[in-house]
Amino acid sequence: MQAPTKRTKLKRLHEYGRYDRGTIYAILDAMPVAHVSYVLDGAPVVTPTLQWREGDRIYWHGSAASRMLETAKDMPVCVAVMLIDGLVLARSGFNHSVNYRSAMLFGNAEAVKEAAAKTKHLETFMERILPGRWPALRPMSTKELKATTILTIPIDEASAKVTSGMPKDDDEDYAFPVWAGIIPISLFVHAPESDPRNLPGLEVPEHAKSFNIG
Amino acid sequence: MQAPTKRTKLKRLHEYGRYDRGTIYAILDAMPVAHVSYVLDGAPVVTPTLQWREGDRIYWHGSAASRMLETAKDMPVCVAVMLIDGLVLARSGFNHSVNYRSAMLFGNAEAVKEAAAKTKHLETFMERILPGRWPALRPMSTKELKATTILTIPIDEASAKVTSGMPKDDDEDYAFPVWAGIIPISLFVHAPESDPRNLPGLEVPEHAKSFNIG
Repeated sequence: MQAPTKRTKLKRLHEYGRYDRGTIYAILDAMPVAHVSYVLDGAPVVTPTLQWREGDRIYWHGSAASRMLETAKDMPVCVAVMLIDGLVLARSGFNHSVNYRSAMLFGNAEAVKEAAAKTKHLETFMERILPGRWPALRPMSTKELKATTILTIPIDEASAKVTSGMPKDDDEDYAFPVWAGIIPISLFVHAPESDPRNLPGLEVPEHAKSFNIG
Repeated sequence: MQAPTKRTKLKRLHEYGRYDRGTIYAILDAMPVAHVSYVLDGAPVVTPTLQWREGDRIYWHGSAASRMLETAKDMPVCVAVMLIDGLVLARSGFNHSVNYRSAMLFGNAEAVKEAAAKTKHLETFMERILPGRWPALRPMSTKELKATTILTIPIDEASAKVTSGMPKDDDEDYAFPVWAGIIPISLFVHAPESDPRNLPGLEVPEHAKSFNIG
């Protein structure tokens, strides 16, 4: 991974900044929800989407009619992936904070153009989130594939920030008589709910029962 | 609320778009985590932060040394707040989707400058998240207040998107023999953990026990 450039540094010059690939990959793999920002008519726009990682790249996709995807193509984007792990309640308001894991990536969004490659990436995405589901689905049509845009950036100009643990209060504040601690937060996956329109006899598949996030 | 302008429309022209203030407020109030994007040297940057709503404005804050806050001041920003409510498993890959609630706001970020106003906003933020905590804390110092930047935009050029329920498959796909349904996802708040450095006899306060998010 190249050294963080000016833009990255501007965003991540805190003591918690981590630039190692393993930390960044772990965050990207734990959390499909991403926020992709781009510039439209000189002004910023940010939209939530799902990302997935393949090796040293991330991908995201959507409708070919999406203005976000059309605008971002071949343009600089910034992608943020963030997991909130808890609130940190300190002895002063100032030292309150949040425990979180976040990754930030910069790059020029490239579109995946070739049909077979697009199909393979979509399969990889599905298999990553719901292993075994792709082969069971009604196969993708040519029309659907054309209606799907996939964008990608390399994990190159990237950084991560991870904070955890108890509050870091000013030394003298530890004598102040107020409860301090953390309130842990995580994502919770509930039991799958079957579509009432399912054909009779279809049972909840293993990939739906074992899905995890966070 | 003014009609969505060109930029907003570009982002939210789907059938699920909702522009009513109540829907947007409910999303902002349920989820403090926001992604703020701005333009730096012509390129987009997006960073996670916490937002809170006061009437028809949202606020966010951070270190006065933060390049994000310094760059965004008096500049156009886009703020996204998003909650993932579940995965939607359809009968085709194409119709898979995510149930979510998201709000998107555009505006020029204004800094709150006056000291008393800054203090009041920080107190409101704390009281919103952890009612009753602010008066119990070691009071904010003048130095800390100066080191804190608060930015705000009106909830004016804004939109929301809410999706829920079972997959919407193509009519003919309902005869395809694959399980379909949803996997609900929510945020989970765990029991508070006390700082081992707490003074003896301090009990977990009610605001920490009853904290909720999502």
